[in-house]
Amino acid sequence: MSIAVSPLAPKSLPALPPIAGVRMATAAAGIRYAGRTDVLLATFTPGASVAGVFTRSRCPSAPVEWCRERVGGGTIRALVVNSGNANAFTGASGRAATRLTAELAAKAVGCSEDEVFLASTGVIGEPLDASKFAGVMDGLVAANAGDGWEAAARAIMTTDTFPKLATRQTSIGGRTVTINGIAKGSGMIAPDMATMLSFVATDAAISAGALQQIVSSAVTRTFNCVTVDGDTSTSDTLLAFATGQAGNTPIADPADPALGAFAAAFEDLLAELAQLVARDGEGARKFVTVEVEGAESDASAHRIALSIANSPLVKTAIAGEDANWGRVVMAVGKAGEPADRDLLTIRFGHVRVAHRGARDPDYDEAVASAYMKNENILVAVDIGLGRGSARVWTCDLTEGYIAINADYRS
Amino acid sequence: MSIAVSPLAPKSLPALPPIAGVRMATAAAGIRYAGRTDVLLATFTPGASVAGVFTRSRCPSAPVEWCRERVGGGTIRALVVNSGNANAFTGASGRAATRLTAELAAKAVGCSEDEVFLASTGVIGEPLDASKFAGVMDGLVAANAGDGWEAAARAIMTTDTFPKLATRQTSIGGRTVTINGIAKGSGMIAPDMATMLSFVATDAAISAGALQQIVSSAVTRTFNCVTVDGDTSTSDTLLAFATGQAGNTPIADPADPALGAFAAAFEDLLAELAQLVARDGEGARKFVTVEVEGAESDASAHRIALSIANSPLVKTAIAGEDANWGRVVMAVGKAGEPADRDLLTIRFGHVRVAHRGARDPDYDEAVASAYMKNENILVAVDIGLGRGSARVWTCDLTEGYIAINADYRS
Repeated sequence: MSIAVSPLAPKSLPALPPIAGVRMATAAAGIRYAGRTDVLLATFTPGASVAGVFTRSRCPSAPVEWCRERVGGGTIRALVVNSGNANAFTGASGRAATRLTAELAAKAVGCSEDEVFLASTGVIGEPLDASKFAGVMDGLVAANAGDGWEAAARAIMTTDTFPKLATRQTSIGGRTVTINGIAKGSGMIAPDMATMLSFVATDAAISAGALQQIVSSAVTRTFNCVTVDGDTSTSDTLLAFATGQAGNTPIADPADPALGAFAAAFEDLLAELAQLVARDGEGARKFVTVEVEGAESDASAHRIALSIANSPLVKTAIAGEDANWGRVVMAVGKAGEPADRDLLTIRFGHVRVAHRGARDPDYDEAVASAYMKNENILVAVDIGLGRGSARVWTCDLTEGYIAINADYRS
Repeated sequence: MSIAVSPLAPKSLPALPPIAGVRMATAAAGIRYAGRTDVLLATFTPGASVAGVFTRSRCPSAPVEWCRERVGGGTIRALVVNSGNANAFTGASGRAATRLTAELAAKAVGCSEDEVFLASTGVIGEPLDASKFAGVMDGLVAANAGDGWEAAARAIMTTDTFPKLATRQTSIGGRTVTINGIAKGSGMIAPDMATMLSFVATDAAISAGALQQIVSSAVTRTFNCVTVDGDTSTSDTLLAFATGQAGNTPIADPADPALGAFAAAFEDLLAELAQLVARDGEGARKFVTVEVEGAESDASAHRIALSIANSPLVKTAIAGEDANWGRVVMAVGKAGEPADRDLLTIRFGHVRVAHRGARDPDYDEAVASAYMKNENILVAVDIGLGRGSARVWTCDLTEGYIAINADYRS
């Protein structure tokens, strides 16, 4: 089916500068889609470090298993990503397909198979014909260039309606370093690891161990705070790469204070990508931020925020521009976390609709309804018990989600 | 909005015989709806016993708190149920409304307020004007009769498209006893206590304690196995009543073997009502049974079954008549329970689509697609690890759910 671009898409795409030591190219291998690119090859300068976070699904895809077994090695020379087929629940043939893809890439690039990382996204359960990559691999290596970020973001899209890109500049020890990131994801989006796929590269010189700590820390406050439908993918993969070409003194200690600004910029970039995923939620017409404070702990606040953000009744009410805070109460109540109905305060944006367990005495339906017409909606809940807080991003639930997902495979 | 009757509704309603010791009447109190009944009064012969199970929401409604405080007393004389307003998250005014309703009923019936039980269903967060009951209460008592079961089931409906009734006959110690039950519920349906509201009466002579054990046991395999949207209500209430008019030797010991057939019939009736709730799921076009076996324990199987039954992607695929078993793999994987991808077997009805971690070698898309056109869909998963099993009922997720819930309150 043809899907228009999400109304929540950014008005323009950021221009991503080249990252020294990263080259990319895309091709149309005909995995599933006709008339579009569906495979990305990125190559990395020798010695580039790699870190990653993966889905916690008990039924992960073959590429997830491939990466998990190799990320501890800490170095990467090539990344191959395809869209159209997730190579998940494909048994022995799936493992053979990852092996063949890595062999093809290793041969074309001239590196060890264990320095090739893989990701696949698309339909689950259908065999992936990796031999299709053979016909495009040499061309991909030949076409590799430093300015391919937008093309890369487009090649990994499935039901995404716009490519997702972000960039930051910061410094390490006085040296300017750049971080570029792309992501794809639109449905089957939930913590843990809501991204489906995201790839972030920097020219900074950072060891794989330090990079892993920065990635693991940043993901808890970014990709693990976005949900579209509560459905966790078999394929969620975030990989980060550091080429070491920026000229900073190489850093191996994750606690090195010289990394402070870099870690902050890295997290900020992941937050932007995570929000872009929610903005491209299947069928989304509104971008929703859920803020919970006053919970017994941050973890408790996070679970309450997710209960609200994943509630079909809350999400459909927002789609209907209905200030239905009763459903927020329901979602708080079902979260199973400590809460006292008579201490709850709920706001939609600046409009306090409920206070200490009942409708706000100054509640004005017209004011609340007017707020709900906004494209960006804030649902803020004060549990009133403690100091725990959390923030989660999601989108509304519309007929569009149903139409897309009742029609996707067949 | 006007909603057609669910295509999954039974072709005809069962005729419920009177239960000696129970009388009912309904009225239009104008709580929210125009032109329909919205209040039910049931009265019980002195000495009738009562048992109940309630929502586990941390933000329960005022009537739930009222009943919870009184069900331990074990006796009931009157039940007042209204639709249109849930009297939930209504603070002090909500508690005053329950008190006033109980006072009005106690006075009209001539009993203690503590023998009056209450339930409310409808919008959350709006004050309930219980004084509206004053104008109808005496008329309700005067009109009380034994044959009002269908009218009662209709008066408690909200977004339900058909009334839900079931009846069983069984025997205790050679005496025939009857069990009648009604339920309402269509959205905001999830374990624990998926019913929203259900009321079950029998003429058997059973102590409140024995009745409570039968109810608590039966609910785990019936109402706690149905989900529409995973949203647990603030108001879920199941009350059971035993009037003792059947003439059996009164039973106080829940382990009394004379209760065996009764307990089985009771659970069977609850299962029928629970399935009717799923069949009236908001926007439902298909009734779905999820069966999980081979899990490490029954509890683990139950959580996996709920993960499948609550997955928006599984439910939209079924709506689209798409044999998308990849999404079933996803839902197994995200459940967080022990599972080994390479041991999974998945069937849609009689069609085995996946076996031991990959697409079934004999998979035939045409056969699978033909099965998905059925109105009743079975999703069966064998985890392949142990002997734990569970069964859950749900429905598909269609545009109808969105339309109903984006429009319900405003």
